[in-house]
Amino acid sequence: MPTFSVILVEPRYEGNVGSVARVMKNFGFSELILVNPHKLGKEARAMAMHGRDVLENAKISDGFEKLKEEFDFLIATTAIIATDRNPMRTPVFPENLKNSIALDGRIGLVFGREDYGLYNEEIEMCDLLVSIPANSEYPTLNLSHSVAILLYEISKLEMEKKPRKLKKFRKVNLVEKRILLEKFDSFVESVHNRKQDAKLAKKTFRQLIGRAFISGRESFTLIGLFRKARNRIKK
Amino acid sequence: MPTFSVILVEPRYEGNVGSVARVMKNFGFSELILVNPHKLGKEARAMAMHGRDVLENAKISDGFEKLKEEFDFLIATTAIIATDRNPMRTPVFPENLKNSIALDGRIGLVFGREDYGLYNEEIEMCDLLVSIPANSEYPTLNLSHSVAILLYEISKLEMEKKPRKLKKFRKVNLVEKRILLEKFDSFVESVHNRKQDAKLAKKTFRQLIGRAFISGRESFTLIGLFRKARNRIKK
Repeated sequence: MPTFSVILVEPRYEGNVGSVARVMKNFGFSELILVNPHKLGKEARAMAMHGRDVLENAKISDGFEKLKEEFDFLIATTAIIATDRNPMRTPVFPENLKNSIALDGRIGLVFGREDYGLYNEEIEMCDLLVSIPANSEYPTLNLSHSVAILLYEISKLEMEKKPRKLKKFRKVNLVEKRILLEKFDSFVESVHNRKQDAKLAKKTFRQLIGRAFISGRESFTLIGLFRKARNRIKK
Repeated sequence: MPTFSVILVEPRYEGNVGSVARVMKNFGFSELILVNPHKLGKEARAMAMHGRDVLENAKISDGFEKLKEEFDFLIATTAIIATDRNPMRTPVFPENLKNSIALDGRIGLVFGREDYGLYNEEIEMCDLLVSIPANSEYPTLNLSHSVAILLYEISKLEMEKKPRKLKKFRKVNLVEKRILLEKFDSFVESVHNRKQDAKLAKKTFRQLIGRAFISGRESFTLIGLFRKARNRIKK
């Protein structure tokens, strides 16, 4: 079973942070990471209720990029759904997090600012994008509501898993993932001359392996394939 | 399809009422009924955000019993799970609300006080008891979090009934998928001489795109990549 951390990027309202700590406690999660939070005080503690220990043990980080190295998988959340005109990363729904539960390692659930959410560069850094399906008229959930729904779904999946025990496959580790992306990238560059084509292919591949939660064995297979393909093209 | 109303019994904190109004708007629900609420003011309006119309149109009731006549079905929510010593009504989980979606008529979702929840007499008046499975150490969710999770589950169930319109990214169709697999296969065969290697690479790719639920757009990008790669190798 993986461990899940909740990462709040630049939360502005301390009441929200407190509410997040409470709902984490409700669902049995404990690691909270705050990236450049606004000041936390009495209101955060009041809203945390019996989740005050989660709040007090929260880690403060001064940059989201630095966190990337600490996690095996980062899952971004957004209210915005990709459309054909807006070819952002294609999101999955919360109940599709099933595959992530089969992994081991550290998974970070990343939630954006109350007003702007996550910037595109931040989403790009994540392996998977999750969106809570809401009313298109007003899809922006309160920050702690988004956290509540995600943690609720994950703890439901964990409960389902326990009796049944999903088949476990060894997750890709950070080094393998980096090598896989490097090999894929240089393969793509040997194929596409146009920068735009190469960029789109790289982005597409990252999204795919993120959504699929690629295993160590699978990435080994693909590393071999793309390395060899590139060598044949360069010959 | 039934209509759902949210009924808050004696809510004490106006911020919670505002948050409930907001999340109702997020999930497309509009009827809010407040039984003997404490005073509502600026904070409730601030928390309601774009759900302010839900808050402003809320109906005030001075007794829960009177509401019973107005609804076809009342669903009570509780954090407390029935035990042998406490032979309360046995609750169901939120996802088991499926059957209620099949009904027509008016359904009331009843949420209790922030501190005491619903009294036993109130639960007795309801037709069904729902409990959100949480950590036994601290199972009491914030009021608006309970509402958020229930409405999320209900709107998920409603979407399952309709063809899922929300999925704005077009899934790969069968023809595209066949072309993608053909192009990948002949690419692999141009790379690997050993049959075993080719077989494993093909299998791995099939599993990956299956787990990732590849989109039409993504498969178009990869078709182009693998076709061109194969042509370069064969040149």
